Amino acid sequence: MNGRDVRICEVGPRDGLQNLPIIVSTETKLALIDALVAAGVPEIDAGSFVPAKVVPQFGDAEAVFAHALRHTGVRIGALVPNEKGAERALAAGVKNLFFVVSASEAHNQANVRRTVEEQVAAFRALRKRIDASGERIHLVGAIATAFGCSISGRVPERAVRDLAIALAKAGADEIGLADTVGYGNPPLVKAIVAGVRADLGPAMPLRLHLHDTLGLGLANVYAGLEAGIRTFDASVSGLGGCPFAPGARGNVVTEDLVFMLEELGLSTGIDLDRLLATRAILAAAIPAEHLTGHLHEAGIPRALRRAA
Amino acid sequence: MNGRDVRICEVGPRDGLQNLPIIVSTETKLALIDALVAAGVPEIDAGSFVPAKVVPQFGDAEAVFAHALRHTGVRIGALVPNEKGAERALAAGVKNLFFVVSASEAHNQANVRRTVEEQVAAFRALRKRIDASGERIHLVGAIATAFGCSISGRVPERAVRDLAIALAKAGADEIGLADTVGYGNPPLVKAIVAGVRADLGPAMPLRLHLHDTLGLGLANVYAGLEAGIRTFDASVSGLGGCPFAPGARGNVVTEDLVFMLEELGLSTGIDLDRLLATRAILAAAIPAEHLTGHLHEAGIPRALRRAA
Repeated sequence: MNGRDVRICEVGPRDGLQNLPIIVSTETKLALIDALVAAGVPEIDAGSFVPAKVVPQFGDAEAVFAHALRHTGVRIGALVPNEKGAERALAAGVKNLFFVVSASEAHNQANVRRTVEEQVAAFRALRKRIDASGERIHLVGAIATAFGCSISGRVPERAVRDLAIALAKAGADEIGLADTVGYGNPPLVKAIVAGVRADLGPAMPLRLHLHDTLGLGLANVYAGLEAGIRTFDASVSGLGGCPFAPGARGNVVTEDLVFMLEELGLSTGIDLDRLLATRAILAAAIPAEHLTGHLHEAGIPRALRRAA
Repeated sequence: MNGRDVRICEVGPRDGLQNLPIIVSTETKLALIDALVAAGVPEIDAGSFVPAKVVPQFGDAEAVFAHALRHTGVRIGALVPNEKGAERALAAGVKNLFFVVSASEAHNQANVRRTVEEQVAAFRALRKRIDASGERIHLVGAIATAFGCSISGRVPERAVRDLAIALAKAGADEIGLADTVGYGNPPLVKAIVAGVRADLGPAMPLRLHLHDTLGLGLANVYAGLEAGIRTFDASVSGLGGCPFAPGARGNVVTEDLVFMLEELGLSTGIDLDRLLATRAILAAAIPAEHLTGHLHEAGIPRALRRAA
């Protein structure tokens, strides 16, 4: 962890932008990534390799990754929905792939137009193709709608656990549990993390990706911490959403999350003042109603620092 | 608890209005109180008995309480900062008083222009005067800045616990622990609740009053639930603040809190649709930037209801 107690993966450049009604310029994306690196963020999900006709926001993915990958000391990842996207990401030099499979059959169909079983088979094939090439690629099995689905409602814990087992067997280096639509709550987070941990054992890295649709984002992070999770996705200014998950709102706000973690005595290696400075980049490019969060408005409480 | 697992005290008409830059009409206050009662809220903090020259918002307190107290089946409370306020509240027929003492000496001075010791002495005198009169009055010892102070920073746990002991000895029927400025975090909430509980024993009712300044409001509620608390203050549309605590922002949003509790399987007895309807009353009278919350924007997730 390089001295960090908790690892934050910033997903603003990917999840944060994918559902916006505007196309953000390549220049703004690069400025955001540079500012995140300058703030000490250890990992950035910098974009998706999806067809530009499906999600026009990522039509410039190659250019964005060419720039992002020049940074050293930061892990640059890409979301890929299928083998074709994975090939593009690998060709761009990306070493960390988030391959998405939904625990909800309905969301998987909406998201990638396949059954869950077909998507797991695609993941397995990708792992084999990568291993055969001899490349060292970190492949995250990212389980969407792990805590509920806005199309089909509650998702059975068993479906999530079985999918995690299937992805682990298919060669995932890490499992991501994503509350794509923000329907999770603290005991549910604890139960699913504990269940997946029990199934996969202590060696499999797990991460949480939590949307803050109903205001429960940080409460769910805290539950995840109590359940032993030490890697969390988050999005600066609380950007985020899923084009294929109606009702999903923004991610946990990175600034608020970092403040909370540091208050809990958990280091993130992130400079909060510099992280807050990313808001100006976003505010110049994105309508204000898409930017949320508390810390930027309240300010870092200096009274706490003084008396610490 | 009348079949409720968790008791919500709505503080919007008091805490929610006290820091606004506008005076809300008496008519709006009464409409809000009526709507809260119609939604099934079991307890309402309906105003403060403070001099109108100090907090002009409550210049109509007598009229507001005369109306509020006509409702049956709901506990109507008032905040009082001193004996004079308590006399006014008692004369108005209020049976539930929140008497405020700060754990932070600096905030107590700013709030009531007395030392903490002087304020505890005033609480003791009030208890004696009430008991001598034979009236049955529920007297809450409300500890402000129990989780931090924007003037003096961190507040020692021992100071909060000693103040709770002093208020209990002085005759408090209940102890309120208030995160007046929203600097609390989950482990801190657990530690202070556990400490106060250990000092006062299981018979003393405890409540939490949590501001959401830094986005940790619901995470702190969850920590409070884990620590055994079953009474929470909250404010519709997240209104709130303290005129004498710089930087304090709104309370935990009642709508979001009720949604979370019901998701956790904890009944509140509150009709969420009717509760959400209070926003229209507030939005017609109060500038939009003072209204926060998630549930009103996201909507109640019907997909969760269907599959429950």
